[in-house]
Amino acid sequence: MSTIPAAEDSLRKALAEKLSNIELQGTSVRQLKASGAPKPDIDAAVQALNALKLEKASIESQLKSTLAGGASGTSTRDAFRQAVANTLERRLFYIPSFKIYGGVTGLYDYGPPGCAIKANVLAFWRQHFVLEENMLEIDCPCVTPEVVLKASGHVEKFTDLMVKDEKTGTCYRADHLLKDYCNEKLEKDLSMSSEKAAELKHVLALLDDLSPDQLGAKIKEYNITAPDTKNPLSDPYPFNLMFQTSIGPSGLSPGFLRPETAQGIFVNFRDLYYYNGNKLPFAAAQIGQAFRNEISPRQGLLRVREFTLAEIEHFVDPQNKSHPKFSEVASLEILMFPRKEQVSGQSATRFQLGKAVSSGIVNNETLGYFIGRVYLFLTQIGIDQHRLRFRQHLENEMAHYAEDCWDAEIESSYGWIECVGIADRSAYDLRAHSEKSGTPLDAQEKYLEPKEVEKIVITPVKKELGLAFKGNQKMVAEALEAMNEDDAMEMKADLESKGEVEFQICTLGRSVTIKKNMVSISKEKKKEHQRKFTPSVIEPSFGIGRIIYCLFEHSFYTRPSKTGDEQLNVFCFPPLVAPIKCTVFPLVQNEQYEEVAKLISRSLTASGISHKIDITGTSIGKRYARTDELGVPFAITVDSSSSVTVRERDSKDQIRVSVEKVASVVKEVSDGHKTWSDILQVYPIHSSESAE
Amino acid sequence: MSTIPAAEDSLRKALAEKLSNIELQGTSVRQLKASGAPKPDIDAAVQALNALKLEKASIESQLKSTLAGGASGTSTRDAFRQAVANTLERRLFYIPSFKIYGGVTGLYDYGPPGCAIKANVLAFWRQHFVLEENMLEIDCPCVTPEVVLKASGHVEKFTDLMVKDEKTGTCYRADHLLKDYCNEKLEKDLSMSSEKAAELKHVLALLDDLSPDQLGAKIKEYNITAPDTKNPLSDPYPFNLMFQTSIGPSGLSPGFLRPETAQGIFVNFRDLYYYNGNKLPFAAAQIGQAFRNEISPRQGLLRVREFTLAEIEHFVDPQNKSHPKFSEVASLEILMFPRKEQVSGQSATRFQLGKAVSSGIVNNETLGYFIGRVYLFLTQIGIDQHRLRFRQHLENEMAHYAEDCWDAEIESSYGWIECVGIADRSAYDLRAHSEKSGTPLDAQEKYLEPKEVEKIVITPVKKELGLAFKGNQKMVAEALEAMNEDDAMEMKADLESKGEVEFQICTLGRSVTIKKNMVSISKEKKKEHQRKFTPSVIEPSFGIGRIIYCLFEHSFYTRPSKTGDEQLNVFCFPPLVAPIKCTVFPLVQNEQYEEVAKLISRSLTASGISHKIDITGTSIGKRYARTDELGVPFAITVDSSSSVTVRERDSKDQIRVSVEKVASVVKEVSDGHKTWSDILQVYPIHSSESAE
Repeated sequence: MSTIPAAEDSLRKALAEKLSNIELQGTSVRQLKASGAPKPDIDAAVQALNALKLEKASIESQLKSTLAGGASGTSTRDAFRQAVANTLERRLFYIPSFKIYGGVTGLYDYGPPGCAIKANVLAFWRQHFVLEENMLEIDCPCVTPEVVLKASGHVEKFTDLMVKDEKTGTCYRADHLLKDYCNEKLEKDLSMSSEKAAELKHVLALLDDLSPDQLGAKIKEYNITAPDTKNPLSDPYPFNLMFQTSIGPSGLSPGFLRPETAQGIFVNFRDLYYYNGNKLPFAAAQIGQAFRNEISPRQGLLRVREFTLAEIEHFVDPQNKSHPKFSEVASLEILMFPRKEQVSGQSATRFQLGKAVSSGIVNNETLGYFIGRVYLFLTQIGIDQHRLRFRQHLENEMAHYAEDCWDAEIESSYGWIECVGIADRSAYDLRAHSEKSGTPLDAQEKYLEPKEVEKIVITPVKKELGLAFKGNQKMVAEALEAMNEDDAMEMKADLESKGEVEFQICTLGRSVTIKKNMVSISKEKKKEHQRKFTPSVIEPSFGIGRIIYCLFEHSFYTRPSKTGDEQLNVFCFPPLVAPIKCTVFPLVQNEQYEEVAKLISRSLTASGISHKIDITGTSIGKRYARTDELGVPFAITVDSSSSVTVRERDSKDQIRVSVEKVASVVKEVSDGHKTWSDILQVYPIHSSESAE
Repeated sequence: MSTIPAAEDSLRKALAEKLSNIELQGTSVRQLKASGAPKPDIDAAVQALNALKLEKASIESQLKSTLAGGASGTSTRDAFRQAVANTLERRLFYIPSFKIYGGVTGLYDYGPPGCAIKANVLAFWRQHFVLEENMLEIDCPCVTPEVVLKASGHVEKFTDLMVKDEKTGTCYRADHLLKDYCNEKLEKDLSMSSEKAAELKHVLALLDDLSPDQLGAKIKEYNITAPDTKNPLSDPYPFNLMFQTSIGPSGLSPGFLRPETAQGIFVNFRDLYYYNGNKLPFAAAQIGQAFRNEISPRQGLLRVREFTLAEIEHFVDPQNKSHPKFSEVASLEILMFPRKEQVSGQSATRFQLGKAVSSGIVNNETLGYFIGRVYLFLTQIGIDQHRLRFRQHLENEMAHYAEDCWDAEIESSYGWIECVGIADRSAYDLRAHSEKSGTPLDAQEKYLEPKEVEKIVITPVKKELGLAFKGNQKMVAEALEAMNEDDAMEMKADLESKGEVEFQICTLGRSVTIKKNMVSISKEKKKEHQRKFTPSVIEPSFGIGRIIYCLFEHSFYTRPSKTGDEQLNVFCFPPLVAPIKCTVFPLVQNEQYEEVAKLISRSLTASGISHKIDITGTSIGKRYARTDELGVPFAITVDSSSSVTVRERDSKDQIRVSVEKVASVVKEVSDGHKTWSDILQVYPIHSSESAE
């Protein structure tokens, strides 16, 4: 995993060899001189040394250019990213928040076109997921009391490792510093041995798995100091990424801003299950803000401190994860990157989703169904299917309770970015909240006929427990009754062989000694009318801001202006998500055309089509260029009072439509009921001598 | 304002008189007895005393029933509110947040139907305001750095007065305790004098205007103690209602959760103005979460700690607040409650909006236009126009900078509730952020021809300022230059008469002495090509949760079941906002009908119509009742495989439509393109012997 490319490896090795040869040869020249050897011998040795130096220089330059191969790719990517960012900021797709006060790192506003795209993406998300699957959408607050996030594990574990500049107190993410050190070293230190380079690459690969101690040791070993001051750094320690606050005036009720929306759904499981007629499977969904108090946010819009999540929690019987609509997505061919291919160094390949599930690559149909639906969602809003892959989590990447997990990753100038996580989280979350709150969060399956089952029967002997544990007897009895079958049978065996056994009581926070006379454990045959179980949760979780950022990059291109003297920017958003569906221009400034433009504008408003009217006297070409840069798919140019020109953004095709019909034509093609090709069937391309 | 009703007043006076007569008569009886007066005299005196006591009892009972007049109204309202709340909670319109952990006061989740209504209300808000007026919608973070909220005044002034139980530390809102005391006293203390009652009513009326000292004095005067413990209370002190947090890991950047979304718009004014082609007027809008850390939230869904606001900031030239579309709303007849009518004790009356503006009751056309648009918005989503009024703020109610302010108040079981505030905030907010950030937030009007104007010219004499103020000279010079014309002319006069003048420098936080030689002030004639000014802001701000709660109350009614043995609940939501537009039932459980139901369900999904399919074997009447209680406007009952019955919720009218057409019929009437009466023109009422 952490090996270095063969070319680089052999060059580093050759360079190391040359350096050592140069040293040897240098020594030999000095010895010859010192021993007063004959001049021709000395000259020959010096010549050999110079030849070695030349060879070294040549290898160095080869190595530089090999390393720069990546770097020149990097610089192209950086230039592309900068071009996109410039357009986005100039046209107010987004704005650094509180800009007039210098801004706050990791906080961004969506300006008008960005906000419209976000609203369109979320409206389509509701249509594609909530409406299509009859999901139960709910809406919970961002402010969350501590008890909920203790149960979910966030209070304890939602941390990043931080180091502080020991003199100034400036904070850094420990892994970032180590990563920067390794990358810089690899790029700039040409004389590094091939082994050292492999080591640094290994560190980079393991970065996410290092413990605080290991990370601290590496920082010490490499003498990494604070980037701004070169001061020494503290040992790494965990910093909780949740924004903390206090609920109510007393200061006694700590709260946090939720780091995800999912917990709000889990704590409502019982009510939602009832609302769904006590039937499984069903899915709940939530769209809302989530917060992460990042130590030092980088990567612009991809790593921010506040973001919109859209999350689905699909509750399912763990014994039956089939999905009735799986056949609808089974034939999709999707770029997938299973665990095995990652470990063996292969690359992502196209799989038919049906085969990926039947061959066991994807754990179950429900997970597979959501992979398919997420694929359809992302490609329909305009993500390039060739730059979208589903990567399976490695074993060590998943939480211990997760059954399987696939990330929808989208390729951007920052590399492959995780934009949607689709995880089978088993029963972990519901169990955690059930235990912590004392409210059962389970489901029942009613049998059509009663079933005979062998069941464990645990009967605590109250009298003996009372004598032994006094006031704690109730908690001990409850803990005994709550044992699962395996634990109970093990206790039974131990009690029979040893007479007593140590038993951990979570609610007491300690273990007690259980004696044989305190509990009876047996297996009995029982008739059961229903089965009680904690549902499994399959969770597709969408980072809306990341998806939108990748959509910006995938939609951006440039093309020469008509005169060829400049490059014009275009965002080729699909009409479905385009911030503004159409512009209306009078071709020239004249009252009659303006009246027609206003008439068309009114009928567009009545049809709910967002649009912009531009009655400036600017040339039509410039006005097209302005709207192309906002990603507006259609432009209506008024050049007569009976019919108008409609121009499509990417093809620049133009058609002529009557003033009465133009709003409904634009509506059909904006709503996605018709494509531009459908429209061209009815209204043929009009060859026009427009001013563009 | 704080007088008590005449009937109550005269009864209290009569009662006080009787009590004093009883005391006198009692004394006289005792004296007669003590002096050994003849028995007949004593008997006569006792008889008179008893007569007085009887009369007192009769007055007491009259007073009780007068006071109970209000109380019986209260109990009807309480019962209605409870019936609505029961239905809302049972059907999961809302859920107390984190319920399984005991909940958090003032935090609520929207469950599935509530969440759907909210999404529908917001979608219509976007259509009705943003799209219709081409507003610039933006989306800013909730987490806001302190500097922004210092500039807006929230850090200093966004407070409520709080008292603490001196022993337990429990916190209460000071005005709530005083209010509860007064109300309880007025209701239960019958022997209170009429003057005392008037005093308490006066206190209630002034409650919002009391200073901490005045409030503390009243609490002391009335011996008000902590409600739960009867312990003494601390003096009232201000508690800031913003949730505080810390941005980033250093702990050095305080932040708050925004108390409103407006500030995010103001700080972006410059970019938005540029985006709009440097043209006024234009409006920006934002929908998002806002937060108030209430001391002790009451009134259920009306006073919560986290809520959704939808805010519009309409920027306009202060010299021209006309509105081009005002004529579209001018003929609306709206229940209005101007300042004058409130002060003189009259009630709200219907005004034609055009007249309200032309007569000066409403300050300007733009304000009037928004009053009209808000009226249309609220009534179209289902608010009863007879329980909606626009109340003008009293002079002392408005911020000092506000020009005029009208609240859309909706009548609910809690009384008249402020749901939308429509304020002309003048240039206050832009000026505050401009001063604090040092970024000019202004607009220009370019003149068609240059204008000759007399202008104040302020020229600080740098040398003198430097000598007098050293390092502060720049700030003094800037403050001098920033004076408006009136202040500058006043300073000029003072300097000429007195030679020096005290001058407050905000940026220094103190005043300095300006001498005559430090500044020259004159008026000069200049040619100007443009006018620079800070725009005025007209701000309609919508409390979405409050509007939805009032909609719940206005939509709720009960009607007898067919058998007449129970009352059934109905929410008569308009199709536009109904959480689910239609249900699909097979009349009886049979495979053929279920297939048809599924077919219809698929075409509804394809048309984007939210619906619910109910294939339980429950009686059709019960299934109708269930959906009526969710406010579902239409039910499709499948009782053949060619055509189906469509039933409208409120009229219970039924029509027959073919299976192929039913989805499009329901779509037309759900989208608001047709009304139910339009549909009845095409599909006449079908008299059916359904099982209902």
